[in-house]
Amino acid sequence: MKLPLQPYKGARDFYPEDKRKQDYMFSVLKDTVTSFGYEEYNAPILEPLELYLAKSGEEIVNEQTYTFTDRGGRQVAIRPEMTPTVSRMVASKRQELAYPLRWFSIPNLWRYERPQRGRYREHWQLNVDLFGVNSNQAEIELITIASCIYKAFKATPDMFLIKINNRAMMDFIFNNYLNLSIEQTYSLAKLIDKRAKLDKVTFLDALDNLLTPKQKEAGVSEKLIDVLSVKSIDDIPKEIKLHESFTKVTESIKACNEAGINNIVFDINLMRGFDYYNGIVFEIFDTHPDNNRSMMGGGRYDGLVGLFGVEPIPTVGFGLGDATLSNFLELHNLVPNIKSETDLYLIPLGDSLNQTQKIANSLREKNINVALDLSDSNKKIGDKINIAAKKQIKYILVIGEQELKTKHFKLKDINSSEEYTGSLEKITEHILKNRSL
Amino acid sequence: MKLPLQPYKGARDFYPEDKRKQDYMFSVLKDTVTSFGYEEYNAPILEPLELYLAKSGEEIVNEQTYTFTDRGGRQVAIRPEMTPTVSRMVASKRQELAYPLRWFSIPNLWRYERPQRGRYREHWQLNVDLFGVNSNQAEIELITIASCIYKAFKATPDMFLIKINNRAMMDFIFNNYLNLSIEQTYSLAKLIDKRAKLDKVTFLDALDNLLTPKQKEAGVSEKLIDVLSVKSIDDIPKEIKLHESFTKVTESIKACNEAGINNIVFDINLMRGFDYYNGIVFEIFDTHPDNNRSMMGGGRYDGLVGLFGVEPIPTVGFGLGDATLSNFLELHNLVPNIKSETDLYLIPLGDSLNQTQKIANSLREKNINVALDLSDSNKKIGDKINIAAKKQIKYILVIGEQELKTKHFKLKDINSSEEYTGSLEKITEHILKNRSL
Repeated sequence: MKLPLQPYKGARDFYPEDKRKQDYMFSVLKDTVTSFGYEEYNAPILEPLELYLAKSGEEIVNEQTYTFTDRGGRQVAIRPEMTPTVSRMVASKRQELAYPLRWFSIPNLWRYERPQRGRYREHWQLNVDLFGVNSNQAEIELITIASCIYKAFKATPDMFLIKINNRAMMDFIFNNYLNLSIEQTYSLAKLIDKRAKLDKVTFLDALDNLLTPKQKEAGVSEKLIDVLSVKSIDDIPKEIKLHESFTKVTESIKACNEAGINNIVFDINLMRGFDYYNGIVFEIFDTHPDNNRSMMGGGRYDGLVGLFGVEPIPTVGFGLGDATLSNFLELHNLVPNIKSETDLYLIPLGDSLNQTQKIANSLREKNINVALDLSDSNKKIGDKINIAAKKQIKYILVIGEQELKTKHFKLKDINSSEEYTGSLEKITEHILKNRSL
Repeated sequence: MKLPLQPYKGARDFYPEDKRKQDYMFSVLKDTVTSFGYEEYNAPILEPLELYLAKSGEEIVNEQTYTFTDRGGRQVAIRPEMTPTVSRMVASKRQELAYPLRWFSIPNLWRYERPQRGRYREHWQLNVDLFGVNSNQAEIELITIASCIYKAFKATPDMFLIKINNRAMMDFIFNNYLNLSIEQTYSLAKLIDKRAKLDKVTFLDALDNLLTPKQKEAGVSEKLIDVLSVKSIDDIPKEIKLHESFTKVTESIKACNEAGINNIVFDINLMRGFDYYNGIVFEIFDTHPDNNRSMMGGGRYDGLVGLFGVEPIPTVGFGLGDATLSNFLELHNLVPNIKSETDLYLIPLGDSLNQTQKIANSLREKNINVALDLSDSNKKIGDKINIAAKKQIKYILVIGEQELKTKHFKLKDINSSEEYTGSLEKITEHILKNRSL
């Protein structure tokens, strides 16, 4: 029997060069959110299935979640998103925690879906959540952080566009402005969320099916389409503008502009897939024509912590996935050259292995990362040097009898072929100095 | 319906203070293996089930692995160990990779077992593997790394004991010295692996059931027990000493001693649970009487990469779990005080929120991590300070009209109650200087 060489369908192996790139992305994410006082948490990848049945949205749970029954008869899910988990953790220590609570995590999440570019069955997602702030300041802080993240990757504002809307305003439009029932509102929100993927006729047909004959006669359909067609926030009908949910959107945009964030626009068609959002929602889109899609999204979800039987907490959060971020960085040429963490490849010649090992240990004590060549001693020196080159290690040092006797060593930079000679101390200094450049 | 507050049975939530501790442990692990030239990789937590059927050992796959059938009808497993995965990845790029190949990973692994102290259903495990080295140097390097890890945690050699044996020598003892069949050898290895958990009578009964009447008559049982009872490596029967597998053990111990590692002993009862080991095996035990158990283990497994239909590669690797490491550090008082990553809690008073926000951003540009107080502006200042204290943030800065006018600020150290006054530049310097201490 021959075992399979490929990873599980739709999931990725991370070879060291891939892992280095992911680590670079995660460290930029982590440094940015940490600078705003956010603290990292984590939780098990398995959760009771019921955690997702409440509010994640039907499609996600029924069609896309990995669920199974464990050996003890429990129904479990591999987490498809982190929001229910973080809400559970906050609820569990509701009274002990100090608010405002700023938390983040970069969990791996699983969704059963057809793999395609930028979408995998396993992906990592930065989750940033702020608990305990009722005011707009929460939304503004999170949008600011998201914007800072892209800037930290050296992206310019023209490369990404922030879209903002308010789910509470949409509910007001559906329920009050259009007089739809709660069920119609729910279905309509789902329909608008999918609108970009549907052609015009399909969308209009689905809309038609949603409305009663009486509503259609009264022109609800046309009224809805008019509202959904507004291009500027100023064109919103006046009676909607009077609602506080509208004011929250305009105030948030204004505050962002004042903070120097000008690539933010109102988009009335922005709904977000999850059922738990109840206020401002936002997404960030790549403006590159080859990757014109949502890279992150979030919003206010004040009700989730309360589902665990404790007093609810106002909450705003967002998620940002690794795959679309990676596509974004590549398309905009923002991926830096990431070197191996190994500084030096030490090659012992002849009988010098024991002595070379001691030298390796002394260099490690000076914080130099050293890999020792343990390949066949009959191998040609050129082939040994090639091993280091293939691993993208910057320096090599060949140690034979001569070097051990004279205590004079020759350090070679593989890329530039430059050589640096001197005592071990001098060579140590040279490596450390050049590493920090 | 009230949702469950607890994490999945046997798995752990990591609140920020727990995550900081785990991050500390992982960074020490990572820094140590990186100093030996090891590179990090990762892979999906789901793998095809067949990957484990070949060599992980029956008990692990049949009783302890999380397996299910996915929506596409594939039999999958949540990885119970990393070795089959890393072997798959190496096999998949067998020709492209440069050997010696030094890889590590800190994956989360899942086992369905009864939760108990130091054993969870989800745990993290440092996996360190060296591919492509036939000689003993591979084993010696890995034992050295393991020893360096405990030293990096400031453990002294009396706190842990390294045990070493050779599975090839055990096979020689079973097959040649005792003339057992291959099936008997397999069962006997499993039995010895479990010996520490069995009482003497149960062990002897099981041994009895393993042997044929003829073997029992010939005194095989007594001969085996005599061998298993040797306390010193010198007491091994001479005909076993002549085998090369014995020499490999003595050479490895000698090389470790020469490298200053003296807390290493031979233990003929050390077997390791996995079926894939074929040479030297080793484990490290906590010597503390309250935690007298194995904390890490590994060995040579030359055959695993070859199971993927490519040319085999000599391999030595080990795994080191986070839970037992955590117990070890606690029992020996080796857990350092780990501060919050947030340096400063900024509290705006009155109408100073906008100005304070600008100050926060300017401090972030100087690499200071700043959390802004967004709690109710009616809250008492003392209560606001308590929020920072609860989050273990070192410094607070209260900013009101007065401070904004005079540009003179008062920084307070929450723990010492010391105050430092000066301009924003002076305060920035003070925070940065004291952070690096």
